[in-house]
Amino acid sequence: MARRSDHAPEELKHLALEAARAIVVEEGLRGLTVRRVAERIGYAPGTIYNLFANLDDLIVQVNAATLDALALVLVEAARAEPALRPERLVDAYFDFVESRPRLWSLLFEHRLPEGEDLPDWYRPKLAALISLVAEALGPLMPDTSAAARQAATVTMWAGLHGISTLAVSSKLALVAETEPRALGHLLVRRMLGGPAADATG
Amino acid sequence: MARRSDHAPEELKHLALEAARAIVVEEGLRGLTVRRVAERIGYAPGTIYNLFANLDDLIVQVNAATLDALALVLVEAARAEPALRPERLVDAYFDFVESRPRLWSLLFEHRLPEGEDLPDWYRPKLAALISLVAEALGPLMPDTSAAARQAATVTMWAGLHGISTLAVSSKLALVAETEPRALGHLLVRRMLGGPAADATG
Repeated sequence: MARRSDHAPEELKHLALEAARAIVVEEGLRGLTVRRVAERIGYAPGTIYNLFANLDDLIVQVNAATLDALALVLVEAARAEPALRPERLVDAYFDFVESRPRLWSLLFEHRLPEGEDLPDWYRPKLAALISLVAEALGPLMPDTSAAARQAATVTMWAGLHGISTLAVSSKLALVAETEPRALGHLLVRRMLGGPAADATG
Repeated sequence: MARRSDHAPEELKHLALEAARAIVVEEGLRGLTVRRVAERIGYAPGTIYNLFANLDDLIVQVNAATLDALALVLVEAARAEPALRPERLVDAYFDFVESRPRLWSLLFEHRLPEGEDLPDWYRPKLAALISLVAEALGPLMPDTSAAARQAATVTMWAGLHGISTLAVSSKLALVAETEPRALGHLLVRRMLGGPAADATG
């Protein structure tokens, strides 16, 4: 506990978020407490409470970083030529979820106490993700209104979310012989008016 | 605690499950403990432990009853003529989720301790639900293999699950102006090769 003045507040915040992230990767939400974050970076719990209002605040900020990381991989996937984008985006999504299932689960497992709303910056962050995908898939949804493209994109997002959630909790394998990722490709292909069978094999 | 011998074991099991169900409807998983179930039916906690291995076992049995109830409403919806079935099934699903959001959430919120599997009867119950829908929608998926119908049905199920999960946790409304149910109809319509816009309005 002697490190109290080793770091500037911004550095310390970064360290605390990294420590929280590492705990979630290793153990999931269950293992995450302010005390353990503090121990991990060698500060007292009180120091963490100077940086974050409470554990919920800390978790929301870990989630914000997860959404930012997801946005980056989707932007990268959306660089492909339009016809390839659906497949690239679905693969990028599943690569992301499969490479950090616990961080991804934290986005949805964690609920704020009843009556508390997500912070103001959360909604635009999520909306930007949806817009980025709606725009990338725009060329594949010609003659559609912006509202219809938005509805289709949200439906694809929710659908991929459902597939991944059921896969992570081992429920999908109970009834599907098909890989979650293949179901994701099927979903997005069909939402864009494509065939039921995968032409590429 | 004087009621120890008022009920036969089967009756008592039924009473305990009803009490657990009522607690979940009122408060969700958070409020559910063996002690509170026991209090509610006027027995000692030990009596509950004679009927159920533990709280997880009790929860799995509440979930089994929820799946049975869902199967009943889907069977009813599937009685419509084939062309109307997609819409009826989606409405039945959302009616079910919206009328008992906490019981429905319990199906997915509750996780068995690591290393424990769901009981043997769980998988056939879930598989029967999927088969019932795959068969009901069969006439709308002509020229498709049984495997493809199964994959499409599982994808619709996972998609509706994703939409409902995000709706229940208030995340869908952050990015969608469309009602969850309308997204569900869109999803199923597209999965069955139908148009992006709703012809009925």
